[in-house]
Amino acid sequence: MTSFQVHAIGRVESPLRDPESAPRQADEGAPAAWLSFEPGVLDGLRDLHHGDEILVLTWLDRARRDVLRVHPRGDPARPLEGVFSTRSPHRPNPIGLHQVEILAIEGLRIRVRHLEAVDGTPILDLKPVLGGDVERR
Amino acid sequence: MTSFQVHAIGRVESPLRDPESAPRQADEGAPAAWLSFEPGVLDGLRDLHHGDEILVLTWLDRARRDVLRVHPRGDPARPLEGVFSTRSPHRPNPIGLHQVEILAIEGLRIRVRHLEAVDGTPILDLKPVLGGDVERR
Repeated sequence: MTSFQVHAIGRVESPLRDPESAPRQADEGAPAAWLSFEPGVLDGLRDLHHGDEILVLTWLDRARRDVLRVHPRGDPARPLEGVFSTRSPHRPNPIGLHQVEILAIEGLRIRVRHLEAVDGTPILDLKPVLGGDVERR
Repeated sequence: MTSFQVHAIGRVESPLRDPESAPRQADEGAPAAWLSFEPGVLDGLRDLHHGDEILVLTWLDRARRDVLRVHPRGDPARPLEGVFSTRSPHRPNPIGLHQVEILAIEGLRIRVRHLEAVDGTPILDLKPVLGGDVERR
């Protein structure tokens, strides 16, 4: 397969330390977290604002990449399912996708609500939320 | 910066050939396309169905990675904006995010409605759509 290099543009700073005990979805008790960025990407952050809803793309570096079928939500009572119809972190390219609201911005650090990624998770990208009533830019 | 390797799990097959003339958003006239997958990921696709709304993550291999500010929608009349508040393909990690409906499935090929990615674009991942009334898995 053809491969490409992605670079961590920052890291998650979160009270969540353990992937096993982390909430599976943001609305299941995920805490606020800081996104801490590399100085080199500051110019890309300049038009983000308090209150914006954004998508955070992360690299789930603790995930397994050789798994193609999982028990949904890790529940062995549920039949195995292909990973591409689940949000399991275990998948060939373990890219996490998280929708969050910006609570505060302090230079290279952005505070967001309800992020289920654990402390230290590398950040790959930020995007405006898809569709809806947000102006497409 | 720390780096990771992503692998193309498939490619887009589309009548869109030229990034410059491609629609900027899926609802601006993007055609149906095929997603053609590597044989090795077949088990991960098995629970996708006709009618499902999915997110396709792509690698925008024609994008520039050294750009942190862009004119939104490529319009020089609009002031420069940080890339992370835009959906510009030009960004440090040019990962494309596309919400599409599955029209048909034929083994390793999945036909989807309204995809703005050009022919040959590498595919990195598929996920169920976020939130809403879809069961979280």
